[in-house]
Amino acid sequence: MDVKTEDFEVTRLGKCTVKSPLTLSTDDAGFVANFTINGQRVVLNNRVHKNDIDSYKPILLEAAGPRQMLYFDPSKVKAAIVTCGGLCPGLNNVIRGLVYSLWDQYKVRNIIGIRNGYMGLLPEFGIETMELTPKHVEEIHRDGGTILGSSRGYGNRTSDMVDALERMNINMLFTIGGDGTQKGANAISEEANRRGIKLAVVGIPKTIDNDLSFVQKSFGFETAVASAVEAVESATVEAHGTMNGIGLVKLMGRESGFIAAHTALASGEVDYVLVPEVPFELEGPNGFLENLKKTLLEQNRAVVIIAEGAGQKLLENFDKKYRDPDASGNKKLGDIGVFIRDTIDEYFHKENIPSTVKYIDPSYIIRSQRANSNDSIYCSRLANNAVHAAMAGKTGILVSKMHEQYVHVPIQLAVAKRNVIEPNSSLWLGVIEATGMPNLMMNSIPKK
Amino acid sequence: MDVKTEDFEVTRLGKCTVKSPLTLSTDDAGFVANFTINGQRVVLNNRVHKNDIDSYKPILLEAAGPRQMLYFDPSKVKAAIVTCGGLCPGLNNVIRGLVYSLWDQYKVRNIIGIRNGYMGLLPEFGIETMELTPKHVEEIHRDGGTILGSSRGYGNRTSDMVDALERMNINMLFTIGGDGTQKGANAISEEANRRGIKLAVVGIPKTIDNDLSFVQKSFGFETAVASAVEAVESATVEAHGTMNGIGLVKLMGRESGFIAAHTALASGEVDYVLVPEVPFELEGPNGFLENLKKTLLEQNRAVVIIAEGAGQKLLENFDKKYRDPDASGNKKLGDIGVFIRDTIDEYFHKENIPSTVKYIDPSYIIRSQRANSNDSIYCSRLANNAVHAAMAGKTGILVSKMHEQYVHVPIQLAVAKRNVIEPNSSLWLGVIEATGMPNLMMNSIPKK
Amino acid sequence: MDVKTEDFEVTRLGKCTVKSPLTLSTDDAGFVANFTINGQRVVLNNRVHKNDIDSYKPILLEAAGPRQMLYFDPSKVKAAIVTCGGLCPGLNNVIRGLVYSLWDQYKVRNIIGIRNGYMGLLPEFGIETMELTPKHVEEIHRDGGTILGSSRGYGNRTSDMVDALERMNINMLFTIGGDGTQKGANAISEEANRRGIKLAVVGIPKTIDNDLSFVQKSFGFETAVASAVEAVESATVEAHGTMNGIGLVKLMGRESGFIAAHTALASGEVDYVLVPEVPFELEGPNGFLENLKKTLLEQNRAVVIIAEGAGQKLLENFDKKYRDPDASGNKKLGDIGVFIRDTIDEYFHKENIPSTVKYIDPSYIIRSQRANSNDSIYCSRLANNAVHAAMAGKTGILVSKMHEQYVHVPIQLAVAKRNVIEPNSSLWLGVIEATGMPNLMMNSIPKK
Amino acid sequence: MDVKTEDFEVTRLGKCTVKSPLTLSTDDAGFVANFTINGQRVVLNNRVHKNDIDSYKPILLEAAGPRQMLYFDPSKVKAAIVTCGGLCPGLNNVIRGLVYSLWDQYKVRNIIGIRNGYMGLLPEFGIETMELTPKHVEEIHRDGGTILGSSRGYGNRTSDMVDALERMNINMLFTIGGDGTQKGANAISEEANRRGIKLAVVGIPKTIDNDLSFVQKSFGFETAVASAVEAVESATVEAHGTMNGIGLVKLMGRESGFIAAHTALASGEVDYVLVPEVPFELEGPNGFLENLKKTLLEQNRAVVIIAEGAGQKLLENFDKKYRDPDASGNKKLGDIGVFIRDTIDEYFHKENIPSTVKYIDPSYIIRSQRANSNDSIYCSRLANNAVHAAMAGKTGILVSKMHEQYVHVPIQLAVAKRNVIEPNSSLWLGVIEATGMPNLMMNSIPKK
Repeated sequence: MDVKTEDFEVTRLGKCTVKSPLTLSTDDAGFVANFTINGQRVVLNNRVHKNDIDSYKPILLEAAGPRQMLYFDPSKVKAAIVTCGGLCPGLNNVIRGLVYSLWDQYKVRNIIGIRNGYMGLLPEFGIETMELTPKHVEEIHRDGGTILGSSRGYGNRTSDMVDALERMNINMLFTIGGDGTQKGANAISEEANRRGIKLAVVGIPKTIDNDLSFVQKSFGFETAVASAVEAVESATVEAHGTMNGIGLVKLMGRESGFIAAHTALASGEVDYVLVPEVPFELEGPNGFLENLKKTLLEQNRAVVIIAEGAGQKLLENFDKKYRDPDASGNKKLGDIGVFIRDTIDEYFHKENIPSTVKYIDPSYIIRSQRANSNDSIYCSRLANNAVHAAMAGKTGILVSKMHEQYVHVPIQLAVAKRNVIEPNSSLWLGVIEATGMPNLMMNSIPKK
Repeated sequence: MDVKTEDFEVTRLGKCTVKSPLTLSTDDAGFVANFTINGQRVVLNNRVHKNDIDSYKPILLEAAGPRQMLYFDPSKVKAAIVTCGGLCPGLNNVIRGLVYSLWDQYKVRNIIGIRNGYMGLLPEFGIETMELTPKHVEEIHRDGGTILGSSRGYGNRTSDMVDALERMNINMLFTIGGDGTQKGANAISEEANRRGIKLAVVGIPKTIDNDLSFVQKSFGFETAVASAVEAVESATVEAHGTMNGIGLVKLMGRESGFIAAHTALASGEVDYVLVPEVPFELEGPNGFLENLKKTLLEQNRAVVIIAEGAGQKLLENFDKKYRDPDASGNKKLGDIGVFIRDTIDEYFHKENIPSTVKYIDPSYIIRSQRANSNDSIYCSRLANNAVHAAMAGKTGILVSKMHEQYVHVPIQLAVAKRNVIEPNSSLWLGVIEATGMPNLMMNSIPKK
Repeated sequence: MDVKTEDFEVTRLGKCTVKSPLTLSTDDAGFVANFTINGQRVVLNNRVHKNDIDSYKPILLEAAGPRQMLYFDPSKVKAAIVTCGGLCPGLNNVIRGLVYSLWDQYKVRNIIGIRNGYMGLLPEFGIETMELTPKHVEEIHRDGGTILGSSRGYGNRTSDMVDALERMNINMLFTIGGDGTQKGANAISEEANRRGIKLAVVGIPKTIDNDLSFVQKSFGFETAVASAVEAVESATVEAHGTMNGIGLVKLMGRESGFIAAHTALASGEVDYVLVPEVPFELEGPNGFLENLKKTLLEQNRAVVIIAEGAGQKLLENFDKKYRDPDASGNKKLGDIGVFIRDTIDEYFHKENIPSTVKYIDPSYIIRSQRANSNDSIYCSRLANNAVHAAMAGKTGILVSKMHEQYVHVPIQLAVAKRNVIEPNSSLWLGVIEATGMPNLMMNSIPKK
Repeated sequence: MDVKTEDFEVTRLGKCTVKSPLTLSTDDAGFVANFTINGQRVVLNNRVHKNDIDSYKPILLEAAGPRQMLYFDPSKVKAAIVTCGGLCPGLNNVIRGLVYSLWDQYKVRNIIGIRNGYMGLLPEFGIETMELTPKHVEEIHRDGGTILGSSRGYGNRTSDMVDALERMNINMLFTIGGDGTQKGANAISEEANRRGIKLAVVGIPKTIDNDLSFVQKSFGFETAVASAVEAVESATVEAHGTMNGIGLVKLMGRESGFIAAHTALASGEVDYVLVPEVPFELEGPNGFLENLKKTLLEQNRAVVIIAEGAGQKLLENFDKKYRDPDASGNKKLGDIGVFIRDTIDEYFHKENIPSTVKYIDPSYIIRSQRANSNDSIYCSRLANNAVHAAMAGKTGILVSKMHEQYVHVPIQLAVAKRNVIEPNSSLWLGVIEATGMPNLMMNSIPKK
C-alpha cells in the first residue's frame, strides 16, 4: 500500500559533519539519554475514528532534540539572541536557557544579546549588543520582562539586519517573538541564503495571546492566565461589594480569545466572556445588554471578561482614528474595554437600575509577571531544543511543542494562519457551560 | 505644680451597672488578663526635648479595652453593623471580629448586618439586613471586600436612618467607614440622644488613603501598599523592557499621598512620586517634564507614581466636567493619571525622544485584596475594642490605635481635619532620598 | 493491507437508549460544540521514524466526551463521589466539577459525597455521606484539601462497599484516588456486575507523584511542583546564608521522582537530585558524598533534592522497623531525608569541613495547596469527561489526558505498572544538564 | 515641683564638630525635612491613669535621626557591616539601607561587608570581607537571607575582633544580630574605647522571635508571621482532610511565643497555642491531652501551634543529650514538636480514637522569606537611623522603634532581660479568645 503522509521537512544549511560534544547514548540500554535520530517524526493528527483506521495517514513534523552530528563546529559559533514585541512571562527564561545550553552543553563562547528587538540591528539607532555568559543570566529567570529590551516593528528591514549580522559574523540567530518577528526571521534566513552566508535562524514562538498555529500552548500563557485570574477575582470582589456591581476585566487577545476563555474556566466565577471569534450584538432582546440585565436582576452582580479584540465591529462607527496599523503591522484596535464600560453605564442609567461598573485593565501587570514553574521548565526546554536545532544547521524554523513532543516547524507553515478558538470546540463549550451564558448573543443567527 | 493636660473624654450613654460576663482579672498577678480600669489614659504627645521636661504636659486619650462594669445587659443587646464607602482590605475581618466578640465573649445573640452601606437603612431602597452569627462569618476573612455590601453617600439622611434603627430596636451600631461615614455616625448618635434612644454608635475608621486624624495607620493600609508595590514592580519590568520605557502607576490618595509614599519606600525602584501635598509644575527648567527627561537620558527608563489627588490644579483648565462632588460628597477628581500619561507622551514626541509610557491603574485590584496577616490581627483587635466600648455605653467615638495603644477618639475630634504627609517630615525625607528626586519641582518656591 | 492496531475498548453497562439533554451539534458548522461520536479514538504512539511509516500502526484509546445517546436516564441517577488517599491539589475542584456537570448539564438531582474515603462505605465506621448541590460546592475550589475528607486503605473491602452502594441505590460512583483506590474501584465495578447491579464506576486518577501509567500529567502535579520550588528557594537562601551551607529538601515520590525532577528543572538552582529510579552510592570516589564535597569546596554551598523513595536500599540495614506496608498497602518507607541529613553531617564533621545542613520537609505544605489556574481548568475538564463517561454507561475506567486529548482508559490497563522516569529520557537528561551532576554516582556501573 | 525622669543617655565618642552634608532644615516652615535636635527625647511610658497625672514622670529615650553636626568627617569614614545568627527576613534590606545611606546621603566611599558573621573577623578562618557599593546591593532586597553570610557564636572573641577592625582601619561598625551579637558588639565598643580607637558600634537588633527588650516589634517579624500563617493554613487543610485530623505546627520562639501567638491571631483557625511563657501539663483532667480529646470529639479535627521553646520541662526526663548550649550560647532545646507529635499519637492510640497528626516544621521556610512591604520600609528606616547615629559618634547602642518613634537604646539596657508575652496582657487574652482554649492547662494553679 502507498501510505501518503504529509511530512513537513525543514530547511538546513548543509551536511552535518561535526561530531556533537554531547556525551549521549545511541541505544536504549543504560542510564544515559539518547540523541534524536534524524528522520524521527511526531504524529500531528492524533484523532481518528476506528472505522477509518485503514485510511488513516499520519501528518508528520520533524522531532526536535540533540543530533549526533552537527553542522557547526561549536568553537566557531557566534550566536545572537533577540527579543521582539510585547512582554510575555518567560522571555528571560528562554534567554537563560539558550545561553546555558550554548555555553555548558556545546561550549560556545561567543554569545551576544541584541538590544531592544530588531531595532538593535539597525544602523540609525546605533547597533547595540551585550555579551551574554552564564554569569550574566544566572538570576534573570527570577524577573519578568527581558534583560535585552524589546521593540515593535522593523521586521521588514531584512537587508539592513542581514548587513549587521554579517558584519558581526553571527552564524546563529535566535529570534524570540510572535508572528511579525518570525516572518522577519524567515526573511533574514532567506536573504542570508541568497548571499551565501551560513546563518541558522531559529525562532522561539512568543505569543501571549496563544494565536500561533502549530504552537499548542505558547510559553508564558499559563502564567498569564494565572495572573488574569487574580484580576478577575478582584473584579468579583468589587462586583459583590455594591448593589448591582459589575466587574469588567479587559484581557489580551487581539484576534484570539484564549486568555479570556481560559481565565473564565480557571476562575469559575465569570458570567460573560466576549472574544473576537464569537460575534455579539449589544442591543435587542438577545443582545449582550439585555442578557446582562437579566443576570443583574437575578443575582445583583455580574462579572464580565472582554478580550481586547472582541466586538471591534461595534467600534467602527465610533472611532475612526484607532483604525491604523501599529508599528508591528498589527491592526490598531479601538479600546473596547472603555467602550463597553461606558455603554453598560449608559444602558443601566437609562433603564433606571442603580449599578456600578468596576473596570480593570491588568494587561501590563499580566505581561510583566515572572514565569511560573511550569512555564520555566517549558521555556528552558524550548531553548535547549532551539540550540540543538541551530547546531544541526536547521534554519527558518520554530521550535514548538505539539502533543507533549518537541518539534521543528517551518516558519512559513506556522505563520500562514492564526490559531483561534473554534466556537464549536470543547474549549468554547466549556466556557459556555462554566458561565451559563447563551451560545450566541445575536438577534439573528449569523453565518459562520 | 498645676499640670494642665488636655484630656479628651468621650460621651457615654449612662452609668455602668451591669457586671461584665468576661472572666478577667483586676490585679496583675496570675495568668489572666486584666480589665481596663476606667480613667486609664494613653499619652499622645510622646516627643519632648530634655530641657523642656519640666513644662511637659501629656495630651491624653481614653484607653480602650474591656470594662468590668457594662452599660448594656448583653442579653438585651441588638447590634447592627454597616460598611460604607469604597472597598478596603480588612472589612470582612472587622465584621468577623465584631460578630465573634459580641457572640463568644458577651453572648449577644441578636446581630444583624445592614446591606449596602447606609443605603440599607433607607426606606426607598427597602431596608435590607442579614442575620450574623459565627457560622455566617467563619470563613469571610479569607476574602477581600465586604459580605454586607457597601455604598457611597446617604450619610446626611440622619432622621430616616434613626427611624429605621429605632423600628428595629437596635441599641448598638458599628459603622465601618471613612470621614463621611463617621460624620454620619456622629449625627446618628446625636439624633438618637435627642430622641432619648439609648443607642451606642461606635465607628471603626476605614480609610485606605490613611487620611484620618488620630488614626496612625488605618487598617488595610499595609495590605494596600503591598499590593501597590506589585503594580510598581510590573511598571518597572515594563520600563526596562523597552528603550526609554516609562512605567507610570496611579495610586489611591485623594487628599493624602500616603500610599504613594509608602509604596515608593517599599519598592525601592521609583524615580518620581507625585502627591497632593507637594505642588509641582510640568513645564520649565525645574518642572517635572524636564526632570523626567534628564532621568530618561541618564538611565533609559523611569518609574513614576502619581497619587490620584496630585496635581489637580493642572487639570482645572482642561476638564471642567470632573469638578462636581460625588455621592459621598468627595470632590470629584479629574483623572490625573491619564492626563499625565498623555502629557508625557506628547512632550517626548515633541522632544523627538522615542519613548513609551506604560500606564497602570491598579486601584480596584488593591482595594479588593484580602487583608494580610498583620492587618488581620489589627482588624480583629479594633473590632474587639469597639465591642468593649459599645458594651460600656460609649458613643460617638472611633476606636483607634495610637503609639501601639488602643484608644477611644471622639468622632468630632477625628474628622476635624485630614491627616496629610508633612513635606518636612521624616517620611517625605525618606521618599526624597529613596527616589533621588528634587525637593520641589517648581520654578519658583511657593509659600507653604 | 491489514492494519493491526491495538484498540483498548472499555466496558459499558449496556446499550445507550436515552437521548442526552445536552443541546450540542452533530456537524461542524455553526457556533455550537459537537457530541463525541462513538468509535472516536486517540492515537497514543505519536512518534515514528519516517522510514518506518509504512509499518506504523497506531495504538488507540477511546476518546472521551459527551455522547448523544446515554445509558442512564438522568432523572433516575443517584451519583456518589469519594476521595481517597493523601491530599493533592485539585481534589475540591474535581468534586465541584462533577457536581456542576451532573447538576447543570444533566440535571441530576441526587448527588452524595461519601465521607473520609472508602471508610465512609464501611458499616463499622457508620456509613457517612453528605448531600452535594452547586450551593454546597460553589466556593470549595478556593481551598486545598477535600471537603469530603479522605482516608487510606480499605480498598479491598469490595463486598461491604457494594452492599452499602446497593442499599443507597447508587448507580454512578466517581472514585478520586490513586493506584490502590482505582484497583478497589475496579473490584467494585466487577462485583456490581456479578450481582447484576447497574453501577457505573469511573475513576479520576489522583497521584501527586505522577506515577500512574496512561496519565501523562496528573492533576495537582503542576501546583505541587510550584510549591516545591518555593521550598527549594528557601533551601537555597539558607545554603547561601552560611559558610558551606547545604540546603536539603525532601519531596514526595515513593516510586517515581517526577516532582523532584520537575522541581529541579523549574528552580534552576539545584546541585543534586536523588530519585528512586536512579541508584546511587554514598561512599567511594564516585559516591554522592565525595561529589557533594567537591561542590562544597568549589562554591561553598549546595542544594540537594531527595525524593522520599530514593536510596531505600541504603536504609535497609539501618532501620528494620520501617519495612511494613502502610494502610493503603504502600510499602512503608524509611525516612531517607533524615538519614541523608545525618549522614552528610557526620561525613563533613569527619572530614573536618565546617558545614550546616538545613533540612526542609515541605510535604504537607505542598499537598494542601489550592490548585493553580491550570490545574483548576484540568480538574474541571477531567470531571466533565468523567460525568459524560458515566452517563454513557462506561465502567471500570479512568478518564485521563494523553497528548492533550481526553480519553477513557480501562483501570486494569492503568494500574498494571507504575509510571517512572526513564533515566535515558530527555526529562532526566534535562535534570543532569540543569544540575551539572554526574550521570551516575556509582563506583561501578550497575546493570539497568 | 521636681519632675524626676529616667533619661537614658547614650555613649558618644566625642564632640561633634563636622557639619553634616545633608541639606536639611532647622525650622518647621517650608517643604524640607528637619535635622533632629540633640536632646530630643521619646516618652516610653505612654499609659497613665487620669488620677495619677500629677505624679506622672515620663521615661525617656534619645530620639534617633540626622544630626546637624557630626563626629566623623564622612570622607574619612571606613564602615563595616556584619550579619550574625540565624536568618531573618529583611537582613538584605538593612544591608542595602546602610550602604545607600552611607553612600548617597553622606558620600562615604569605603564600605565593606564582613563575611559569615563574627567568624569573618577571626584570624583562624582567614578574615574575609567584600566591598559594598550601591551597585552591589541594588537588587538584594528582592531576596531573603543575607548576601554577607552569617554564623553563630564567636561573640566573645572581642580582642581578636578589635584587632581585625583596627588593622582594617574600620571606624564604624554596624552589627545586625540578636542578643548574643549585640552583647559582643558592646564588648567591641568598650574594648575599642579602652584602646583609644575611635570606633562607633551601632547595632540593628535582629530577633525573629521578637524577644529583645526595648524593641517593640523586630524587623522581619511581620513577614515571619505571614509565612507561619501559610503553614498553619496547610495544617488546617490537612486536619480537615481526614477523620480526626490534627494539624501540628512548630514555630520559632525559644524563650518567647510571639510568633506563635500572632500567627494564631492572624489565622483565626487555631485551637491550641503552646508557648514558653505559659506552663502546661500533658496528663490529667485539665491537661493538654484531655482538652485536645474534647476538641476532637466535638469537631473531628484540631489545629495546634507549638513554639519551639514551649514545654521544655516535659522533655527534661526524656532526653538529656539536648541540654547543652549551642554555638551562640543559646540553651539547646529538645525537639518539642516531634515529642508532642509522638505523645499525641500514642495517647489517641491508647484511647482507641482513630486520628492522624500531620506535623509541619516550617522554620527554614519562614526564616528565608523576602521581607514584605512593611518590613522593607522598616528595615531601610532602621538602617538610615543607624547611619545617622554612627555619623554623630554614638556607640554601644541599638536603633529601635518604640511607639512609632525611632530611638537610640544603650545595648546594655536592651540585653538586660528578654521580651516575653505577659500571660495577663491583652495580647495573650486575644489568643485565649481567638482559640477558645482554657486559660491554663494545669491540674493545679502554679505560682507565677
